[in-house]
Amino acid sequence: MPTFGFHPYPAVVFQAANDLAYFHATTVASLDSQVKPHEYAPADADYNHPLPRTWSQSMNFNLHATDGAARAGAITTAHGTVETPIFMPVGTQATVKGLTPEMVRGVGAQIILGNTYHLTLRPGDELIRDLGGLHHFMNWPHPILTDSGGFQVFSLAEKRKITDHGAEFRSHLDGRLLELTPEKAVDIQQNLGSDIAMVLDECPPADAPPDVLRNALRRTTLWAERCRAHHTHPTQAQFAIVQGGLNLELRAESAAALIPMDFPGYALGGFSVGEKPEEMHAALPACAALLPATKPRYLMGVGRPQDLLIAVAAGIDMFDCVMPTRSGRNALAFTDTGPVKLRNAKHKRDPAPLMSGCDCDCCRNYSRAYLHHLFNAEEMLGPTLLSLHNLAYYLRLMREARTAILAGRFREFTETQTRGWS
Amino acid sequence: MPTFGFHPYPAVVFQAANDLAYFHATTVASLDSQVKPHEYAPADADYNHPLPRTWSQSMNFNLHATDGAARAGAITTAHGTVETPIFMPVGTQATVKGLTPEMVRGVGAQIILGNTYHLTLRPGDELIRDLGGLHHFMNWPHPILTDSGGFQVFSLAEKRKITDHGAEFRSHLDGRLLELTPEKAVDIQQNLGSDIAMVLDECPPADAPPDVLRNALRRTTLWAERCRAHHTHPTQAQFAIVQGGLNLELRAESAAALIPMDFPGYALGGFSVGEKPEEMHAALPACAALLPATKPRYLMGVGRPQDLLIAVAAGIDMFDCVMPTRSGRNALAFTDTGPVKLRNAKHKRDPAPLMSGCDCDCCRNYSRAYLHHLFNAEEMLGPTLLSLHNLAYYLRLMREARTAILAGRFREFTETQTRGWS
Repeated sequence: MPTFGFHPYPAVVFQAANDLAYFHATTVASLDSQVKPHEYAPADADYNHPLPRTWSQSMNFNLHATDGAARAGAITTAHGTVETPIFMPVGTQATVKGLTPEMVRGVGAQIILGNTYHLTLRPGDELIRDLGGLHHFMNWPHPILTDSGGFQVFSLAEKRKITDHGAEFRSHLDGRLLELTPEKAVDIQQNLGSDIAMVLDECPPADAPPDVLRNALRRTTLWAERCRAHHTHPTQAQFAIVQGGLNLELRAESAAALIPMDFPGYALGGFSVGEKPEEMHAALPACAALLPATKPRYLMGVGRPQDLLIAVAAGIDMFDCVMPTRSGRNALAFTDTGPVKLRNAKHKRDPAPLMSGCDCDCCRNYSRAYLHHLFNAEEMLGPTLLSLHNLAYYLRLMREARTAILAGRFREFTETQTRGWS
Repeated sequence: MPTFGFHPYPAVVFQAANDLAYFHATTVASLDSQVKPHEYAPADADYNHPLPRTWSQSMNFNLHATDGAARAGAITTAHGTVETPIFMPVGTQATVKGLTPEMVRGVGAQIILGNTYHLTLRPGDELIRDLGGLHHFMNWPHPILTDSGGFQVFSLAEKRKITDHGAEFRSHLDGRLLELTPEKAVDIQQNLGSDIAMVLDECPPADAPPDVLRNALRRTTLWAERCRAHHTHPTQAQFAIVQGGLNLELRAESAAALIPMDFPGYALGGFSVGEKPEEMHAALPACAALLPATKPRYLMGVGRPQDLLIAVAAGIDMFDCVMPTRSGRNALAFTDTGPVKLRNAKHKRDPAPLMSGCDCDCCRNYSRAYLHHLFNAEEMLGPTLLSLHNLAYYLRLMREARTAILAGRFREFTETQTRGWS
């Protein structure tokens, strides 16, 4: 049974954990030792029924409206409700770079992402657990999703060796030899105490040959099963990841293998890994349609504002990407009339706000000339203000998309918005 | 007459400027061309009278209480009132590094300092004037004091040549050949539109030989006179700077030369320039006593918390120093039990706040372990949170000093506070 109840969670979380732990202990936990998790969620389950309250499903998803394939819904977690479609700011190292949690919340963030790979290396997931979990550690009492660390092992770590057992690699920080198995990825995320955890997956590059894609898919399925079986956290939901690159047959095969395991949510991995945006756009509707309609659908690591709208149109509910914050730190801002490069000398004397009509603190209080000055003088406030604006922009885009879906005018909204960018 | 009324000040400032400009135009401006400024403020003026409303005296200073030599008062400027003793956070390049103006205000800052040297190099004082002045440019609608640029010319600029005419130097940024004369220092600060401007002074190092000190003093007096004569900004007060190093005779000579010019405030320059803290402490009471009792007294570039209390005891009202923000960026925090180095490994697992009892956002929301992690991971939020705490600490120290002075228990307050630090 979970060791989590014994760690110093903030009181409200502790109560929620207790409620669910009680349910778990009396109703479902006993099944755990007798049957494989996926055995009580058959492949032909009717996905239009409410989610069964099985042991990992401490999360609820309600679909409020659809407009074509686009969906407006709400995910309820132990730390609050998230209205979808939603963009999740990336807080890699237990902080959204350059912003306080109050600022992140202030621009409308409802859920943020933490990185398993980075946090297990530094400061360590056991340390975070001992200090009350990631929410308490970083002062973000709202929902958190953590990735599994797989993507970073493939993109950042050195001398990695992948077998069916797991990944062996050296830390990009100090060269330490480390191992990430499906079970370890679950343990780390349970220590972090996120509301949504991701299974460990193998994420090959877009140009990987079919046999590599196929093997990654096989391994991802195997690892998902092991993650599902190892998971015990009472208030954490676990999402599976469908791989298969741009090959729709492989995507269908991956989804067909994962759906019977009855995860509370499903993600599309392996996009934004080197393919052309148009290739991803073309593949998204079919890929999204492979995922259960009654569960949240998360497109990992995507993307630009236009990518988000195209993905929402395809039926995606959740997004994360470093783009708004990383671009913000590099003086690139997203606006309704397209990207603005604040380092450009043409802004030197411009008294206009970055984007007129934007209600974020950056646009309400400062001129383009001031923002240009901050980047020119290498002042920290430049990255802070532009990260703030870009997140406000992304989050508003998703709020407005939601409103449009609820009103049945998502296509018009997308067309108007897209015209501004071009 | 001032060109200032024609620039896009925020409405409230514009109104204040107009009110004073009217007064200026009808009552005093005509004197300007006929008499030297200091001629209508004789050397034997009674300093216990309220300040005469002469053209540069758009500022009021009221003394609310004294406790020994320590003073509690209030300075009223066109942008609001400042309760003294006060610490002024340093906003060198039109931003207090790492903090939004809301954060700076939130920790109790009433007035900040801007740097003439840095701002004239980048983005340029005329640009700032054209964009509505420094308050509007940086979104700080409260009082601002600007230095004269002299100290930076002596400490940062390259290949400088000083004559009675002024300073010729090369920019430390791009090597441009530039000139800073007393008149130019006034023009720049009038363009910036600060509430309090400093005269150009020559600030020799602590170990300068007597003839260098004496010549710097002579030049500072000469330049003060030229600054006074050149000044026209209707809502800006100009402060003189007393030099003389640790030599009390020279300090007395400097004060005696400057006081008849009837500046609205007086500063002590040439401290914290390489002398031992104890040497400064010993010199302060006599130096502060040289300055008019009815006017604000400003100790430039000082210092540590203990230096501030010693200076307040000597009768100083205003301070500025990069120490709280610069130390904060380097993981050093000031607390009631002395400095804390957050990079130290002993904080790695410490769930305690940086300083218990501190009501700043850093201490209320985060553990030492989290702050340690932020610096270890080189996250921007570390410098931000520690700058915030250190400013909160300095500003609270001055607020509590004020309360103690008003209650006649400043000595006890200082003793208690100082015991904690040792």
